[in-house]
Amino acid sequence: MSYVLYYSPGAASMAVHWMLIEMGVAFEARLVDIDAGQQHDPAYRQLNPSGRVPTLVVDGTPCHESAALLMLLAERHADAGLAPQPGTPERAAWFEMMVYLANTVLPAMRDWFYADVDGDAEGAQAVRALARRRLEEAWDRLDAHLGATHEYLIGGKLSTADFLAVMLMRWTRNMPRPALGWPNLARYIRSLRAMPSFIELNVREGLTEWRNENE
Amino acid sequence: MSYVLYYSPGAASMAVHWMLIEMGVAFEARLVDIDAGQQHDPAYRQLNPSGRVPTLVVDGTPCHESAALLMLLAERHADAGLAPQPGTPERAAWFEMMVYLANTVLPAMRDWFYADVDGDAEGAQAVRALARRRLEEAWDRLDAHLGATHEYLIGGKLSTADFLAVMLMRWTRNMPRPALGWPNLARYIRSLRAMPSFIELNVREGLTEWRNENE
Ligand SMILES: N[C@@H](CCC(=O)N[C@@H](CS)C(=O)NCC(=O)O)C(=O)O
Ligand SMILES: N[C@@H](CCC(=O)N[C@@H](CS)C(=O)NCC(=O)O)C(=O)O
Repeated sequence: MSYVLYYSPGAASMAVHWMLIEMGVAFEARLVDIDAGQQHDPAYRQLNPSGRVPTLVVDGTPCHESAALLMLLAERHADAGLAPQPGTPERAAWFEMMVYLANTVLPAMRDWFYADVDGDAEGAQAVRALARRRLEEAWDRLDAHLGATHEYLIGGKLSTADFLAVMLMRWTRNMPRPALGWPNLARYIRSLRAMPSFIELNVREGLTEWRNENE
Repeated sequence: MSYVLYYSPGAASMAVHWMLIEMGVAFEARLVDIDAGQQHDPAYRQLNPSGRVPTLVVDGTPCHESAALLMLLAERHADAGLAPQPGTPERAAWFEMMVYLANTVLPAMRDWFYADVDGDAEGAQAVRALARRRLEEAWDRLDAHLGATHEYLIGGKLSTADFLAVMLMRWTRNMPRPALGWPNLARYIRSLRAMPSFIELNVREGLTEWRNENE
């Protein structure tokens, strides 16, 4: 199994990068600096026609969509135990959480950060207002879901849903209401940020913000 | 394995309903009329706190998110062959397409139909304009993906991605540019609408619009 991850520091590639580090599988990481516009380079567009990160080249084939990549990796490396096994009672909840994060939280994030790029500048404020409302509803819901005791989103065990959720929560750090303002999310975030693989991820991506030592 | 599907005619439950009929598994269908507001009934909210359809009660546990339900059913009924098997080369493309439909097309549909319910009425026009742009980009992309020859979205075979895609395409029927206006999508739609399970689905949901005999 060969993996090449195209990533940009702190971008949607982060969850996949984290999972690869956590599993300890061999992979090559290649930087696509989206602040420098490298996602639009013709050579990168060959791998990812929509000009986004991540792209994960799996055994020679470029694959996309962070949530899909996490599910695929969980299946290819079932021994890592990063998803409930097929046939277990937690399996449906895991699929549901992965899809919920992918189709509710992630698109609202896209709206928040890209309203004026994806759409007309005049409409951006309205799009961002709705995105903010949806995101805060999602944090309410996830905060209630975790409650005061759950350490992980699904089945009392670390899973791909946690990599995806923590990445999304990190993106709120400069929003009007950062995820750290919800008490159960704050506990959850601090616990996951203490993982050696998260610390290593930040070193490899050159990220200094939003770590336990300097939130 | 027991299934109870809570559905509303033509709503996001349609893909799951279609798949259950196509597989020929036993299930009970219960109507939640969203035009009549039945999704807000306290008894239904117990099953689905966000007040949406579908809910699929799987062996007694309420499960949500149409894309997640389709993936779960494909796995529980692997013999029906409605997803590429784990380990096959098409598996990554299937995950990617399921997530793409779920996180790009479906949220834009929600924006188009619910901008004034989910957000402020004043902002709805801007939200809908961006939704329309994203949907038309998605139809361009799926039309190109199918090209002149492909009958199905993934691996030359019927899969859950087709149930989801055709449901989403049906929702464009009163939009400024219905999916039937893209030539490859039109061919694809007409071919899938000819399936006995789609015809049966329309009978069971009491739907008369957007069928091959009266498009
Ligand atoms: N649905 C995609 C979203 C990817 C995405 O929007 N990535 C952003 C960075 S977070 C990007 O590449 N932006 C560059 C651009 O759009 O120009 C996924 O989850 O992989
Ligand atoms: N992401 C959900 C979306 C479900 C959804 O938005 N359903 C709509 C009908 S298409 C609904 O229940 N609307 C009623 C309401 O929001 O009041 C899924 O795919 O299952």
